[in-house]
Amino acid sequence: MIKVGIVGGTGYTGVELLRLLAQHPQAQLTTITSRKEAGMPVADMFPNLRGRVSLKFEDPATAPLHQCDVVFFATPNGIAMTQTRELLAAGVKVIDLAADFRITDIPTWEKWYGMTHACPELVAEAVYGLPELNREKIKGARLIANPGCYPTAVQLGFMPLIEAGVVDLKYLIADAKSGVSGAGRKAEVHALLAEAGDNFKAYGVAGHRHLPEISQGLSRAAGQVVGLTFVPHLTPMIRGIHATLYARLTKDVDLQALFENRYRGETFVDVLAPGMHPETRSVRAANICRIAVHRPQGGDTVVVLSVIDNLVKGASGQALQNMNLLFGLPEAMGLDQVPVLP
Amino acid sequence: MIKVGIVGGTGYTGVELLRLLAQHPQAQLTTITSRKEAGMPVADMFPNLRGRVSLKFEDPATAPLHQCDVVFFATPNGIAMTQTRELLAAGVKVIDLAADFRITDIPTWEKWYGMTHACPELVAEAVYGLPELNREKIKGARLIANPGCYPTAVQLGFMPLIEAGVVDLKYLIADAKSGVSGAGRKAEVHALLAEAGDNFKAYGVAGHRHLPEISQGLSRAAGQVVGLTFVPHLTPMIRGIHATLYARLTKDVDLQALFENRYRGETFVDVLAPGMHPETRSVRAANICRIAVHRPQGGDTVVVLSVIDNLVKGASGQALQNMNLLFGLPEAMGLDQVPVLP
Amino acid sequence: MIKVGIVGGTGYTGVELLRLLAQHPQAQLTTITSRKEAGMPVADMFPNLRGRVSLKFEDPATAPLHQCDVVFFATPNGIAMTQTRELLAAGVKVIDLAADFRITDIPTWEKWYGMTHACPELVAEAVYGLPELNREKIKGARLIANPGCYPTAVQLGFMPLIEAGVVDLKYLIADAKSGVSGAGRKAEVHALLAEAGDNFKAYGVAGHRHLPEISQGLSRAAGQVVGLTFVPHLTPMIRGIHATLYARLTKDVDLQALFENRYRGETFVDVLAPGMHPETRSVRAANICRIAVHRPQGGDTVVVLSVIDNLVKGASGQALQNMNLLFGLPEAMGLDQVPVLP
Amino acid sequence: MIKVGIVGGTGYTGVELLRLLAQHPQAQLTTITSRKEAGMPVADMFPNLRGRVSLKFEDPATAPLHQCDVVFFATPNGIAMTQTRELLAAGVKVIDLAADFRITDIPTWEKWYGMTHACPELVAEAVYGLPELNREKIKGARLIANPGCYPTAVQLGFMPLIEAGVVDLKYLIADAKSGVSGAGRKAEVHALLAEAGDNFKAYGVAGHRHLPEISQGLSRAAGQVVGLTFVPHLTPMIRGIHATLYARLTKDVDLQALFENRYRGETFVDVLAPGMHPETRSVRAANICRIAVHRPQGGDTVVVLSVIDNLVKGASGQALQNMNLLFGLPEAMGLDQVPVLP
Repeated sequence: MIKVGIVGGTGYTGVELLRLLAQHPQAQLTTITSRKEAGMPVADMFPNLRGRVSLKFEDPATAPLHQCDVVFFATPNGIAMTQTRELLAAGVKVIDLAADFRITDIPTWEKWYGMTHACPELVAEAVYGLPELNREKIKGARLIANPGCYPTAVQLGFMPLIEAGVVDLKYLIADAKSGVSGAGRKAEVHALLAEAGDNFKAYGVAGHRHLPEISQGLSRAAGQVVGLTFVPHLTPMIRGIHATLYARLTKDVDLQALFENRYRGETFVDVLAPGMHPETRSVRAANICRIAVHRPQGGDTVVVLSVIDNLVKGASGQALQNMNLLFGLPEAMGLDQVPVLP
Repeated sequence: MIKVGIVGGTGYTGVELLRLLAQHPQAQLTTITSRKEAGMPVADMFPNLRGRVSLKFEDPATAPLHQCDVVFFATPNGIAMTQTRELLAAGVKVIDLAADFRITDIPTWEKWYGMTHACPELVAEAVYGLPELNREKIKGARLIANPGCYPTAVQLGFMPLIEAGVVDLKYLIADAKSGVSGAGRKAEVHALLAEAGDNFKAYGVAGHRHLPEISQGLSRAAGQVVGLTFVPHLTPMIRGIHATLYARLTKDVDLQALFENRYRGETFVDVLAPGMHPETRSVRAANICRIAVHRPQGGDTVVVLSVIDNLVKGASGQALQNMNLLFGLPEAMGLDQVPVLP
Repeated sequence: MIKVGIVGGTGYTGVELLRLLAQHPQAQLTTITSRKEAGMPVADMFPNLRGRVSLKFEDPATAPLHQCDVVFFATPNGIAMTQTRELLAAGVKVIDLAADFRITDIPTWEKWYGMTHACPELVAEAVYGLPELNREKIKGARLIANPGCYPTAVQLGFMPLIEAGVVDLKYLIADAKSGVSGAGRKAEVHALLAEAGDNFKAYGVAGHRHLPEISQGLSRAAGQVVGLTFVPHLTPMIRGIHATLYARLTKDVDLQALFENRYRGETFVDVLAPGMHPETRSVRAANICRIAVHRPQGGDTVVVLSVIDNLVKGASGQALQNMNLLFGLPEAMGLDQVPVLP
Repeated sequence: MIKVGIVGGTGYTGVELLRLLAQHPQAQLTTITSRKEAGMPVADMFPNLRGRVSLKFEDPATAPLHQCDVVFFATPNGIAMTQTRELLAAGVKVIDLAADFRITDIPTWEKWYGMTHACPELVAEAVYGLPELNREKIKGARLIANPGCYPTAVQLGFMPLIEAGVVDLKYLIADAKSGVSGAGRKAEVHALLAEAGDNFKAYGVAGHRHLPEISQGLSRAAGQVVGLTFVPHLTPMIRGIHATLYARLTKDVDLQALFENRYRGETFVDVLAPGMHPETRSVRAANICRIAVHRPQGGDTVVVLSVIDNLVKGASGQALQNMNLLFGLPEAMGLDQVPVLP
């Protein structure tokens, strides 16, 4: 059994990690920390875990994180980078669900996240945990930068086009829509049901932190800097991301075959048949990305539709997928939940 | 492996049964029928099942239902009663998720359901499939009448009070609230998002089909006819039932102990600590009923709060729980999903 | 034109008051205060008011409240009581949308609201602003205690039964369901869309602040202390309250006629035809209460269904209705909005 | 008073037209027809209209439409074209809320709507009723083709850029999101709350009927055929459209000034300050379009955000705006509702 620790865990990626770990046959949750809620049974905060998770939140200062095989950081940005060095030194593998190790260029990270990075040397070592892109590197890593939710949906959608070199790299557009759980379990007025319910809006058009992460990933795949416009929106639902991607074709290509070939054999990417439209509910509560590719009116604008559950393939499910790879387990172990519909 | 057939299956109890069966280690889905959709892959109708259920809907006339070990009817009322006799004769066990076998008194059934019953003799044989009440009878049955969603939540909430004889049986009130999936997957204007969304209403105050079912269950437990007022409401969510039950205490009793003792050892009933309020999301997509009991201001009105997922403990999950009992499997097999929150 | 001031106004009753005042032909909004947001244009906080309300929030210390004809307090509990004496002395009429003047019995108020009352002598003078009950007293008042949202729906529903003396006063049950705007525009985790969405729960079963307010009103009408069980619930919608009321009939009576007669001539109470069920959306954004009365199965339990928009008839609309009465205007002036459906 | 008739009126644009007409000081609803619901009081179908609209639906065969000054068609596509000739001949002005007269090119219309056009000669006469574009022509018209909901939001957002000739006309992208009331009040499974709730999806990527309408409008303004990719999405809310528009700048221009100048003096178009994001709820239930223009990262992709209430500025409110123009009334008469928030 893999001994698992969680730092943080009072947010939505935390409770989702707990839900999935409770069903994983080879993982044993050993400790979960929360400075603020130390002493509270986890199931008192998250009543869905009653009878399934008996641990209490522990004080981070005394929690036996060093005895774990792997520690997940389900914390705000800027926490993992202060504790990872020590954990790695103790032989613990680390999977950070926040953004501390996602951006290789330190000045870029520091600009977007407004902090000085505490361990730049580990950023170079960290592996970006998108298994469909980086599977082999992940297997040998000590430190995983688990991708953001928008970046997962957008990169999986664009990747076949970019790797194949068939689109104009200067004008990529990602119009993305997220449910409100993406904003986290924070007491903020704008995320109240009375504010965000029955309402739709764009936000962060001038610049969102996931922009440099996506740009970095696409640029690496392209071998050159891409031009990306990324517009996130808030949609009145709890879970789910729908990314609608636009690019201009520069070569004639069988788009359907391109996508099917790229993702053949991938357990967690499902390419739909021509003409279909994926829905976010078709992936609700499960670790899967469903993708459809369209070429409206036979023109030279390609439209890719990519959906994930932001808390699963966009966060905690992908983190477990990475854990499985890190420990040589079957990649899909504990991730066979069927999406919940309706 | 138990060979499983489903009749119907294009509705919400059908897709939920499929979701749960796909995760059951001892059940093998053999055939699923739909007169209307014969030939269509199940996963084309329910995209959450892509990659998990490969069957197509079959024509009921030719589907090999007789070769199954058990057949679930996830059909409208009035279908199961026309096919059950033949299936039982072929040695197939039958679990009806509709109402055909729930009401023992035939004239009552015929009045509320507006049909002549096709096999009254089987009604007498059928066992009402509420395991927390009828576990032993279920184990030896051939034919299970799976309870309705409201009746499950209401009976589990009232049962400890009635069995203990501590409330006035003439004035029981069940104020119940349901998500819209309870109305089924039918094209009806009143259930549109634009109609039922951001809206709350009572319905069927003059009389709802679940009233005689609940009354029958409570009266049996009481050993006398009870007086029940049942008011169902439609609440703008997808899954979940919340029953708020009121009764007048006739004896002083430790209510908390009464409920805890009644449900000690029950895997699928969770009695909350004093003062707590169960939420429907705490049982979303899982086979569990959570109950809290209150005595406001120390008066003699007892208030019971009982929540289930109408599609799981209120329908398909309970049906699998019954299947497990019928076949001597551990009662909780394949029903260990953790509720999905948020 | 009536010069109107608003104290507070950054919450939902505030924005709703502004929406309605902007359409009132005889009211002129003169000043609106907010300690925290002083200097911010009101329309920056509430974008629906762009082009319709040009005022900025003013510092309460310097705002010309004394020059107003009427001041509305759309503040948390405990604010109005500290400023009302001075305003009344300056000849300004006061309408408090909070609870400071609702409960006549000071110790009861202090127990439920956890504060020492700052001006008990004004509580005796204040008139409870439920026009359908207190119309004449309101016309001559200086100080109005605007009713709570639940109390409005529940009292209007029970009143005909209690005034007519046809129900058992010891066992009244009010099962009430509210949209989340009733919780106010406060940054609290439990009211997030990701928490309150697709979820239903009871809360405050042990005791809610609206219980003594409702009990006081019903007891006054009954001429004796009534026994009331009040269970509020949170339902995943933005606006609306649905109260389901239960009482035991002690006399045979034509319930439909009783209700129709009681509310004949009332502009803002609509008694539905027998057998109907009111929906909250039928009153959305308008100042009206719709009521239906049922007697299920002809038994002796009467069921009343009463719906309002908690922000209009349950708060700001009723406050304007009171203002109209205070200033001798037609009671319905500025309150002729048609409910918004869908 | 203008005598108003409505043909159809059992759908959402119908009830919205009734809500607005009930508050219009110069319009008198004279007759409303429905073949299917003839004889039913309108307020029985739409309970928000109780006490406000006393008419019954009339049989179209006998309804006195010819005595009206104006007739609105709130019907499915293909109805208005069969009755308009006769009404015009009788001196009645006609406003069609459906699509019969929107597309000038008859073969294009027939291809997208799958019918033979019944009166092509009137298509040439009809004026496209987007007042911000066609105000003077509307004033003198007999027959108005009221724009579609998506086309209103998209055209108002793109128009300043196209008229000024500052974007590449070959690659315009409109990523639009609509609430479910846009699908109409039809009994269809895909629009059930249990299907469309908590879900997000694109639809009609291969081609949507609003594509030729938008293309026609933009091409006219451009003086050449434009290249447009239009992707509509369904978002789980009742009212509202959010269009996110992308174009490539070909000239350096002060975008904010361009938009402000274009819409200066327009009552029903609100250009937000730089950096703002409009929300659909800020226009809920009111006749207004709010627009913001962005240039992310100072690149040459311009992003326009445009929101309307699909049932008001996207349908019935705009129809009344057109009626006001047709009859020489102030354009904003009866359209001064303040948006409902929250």
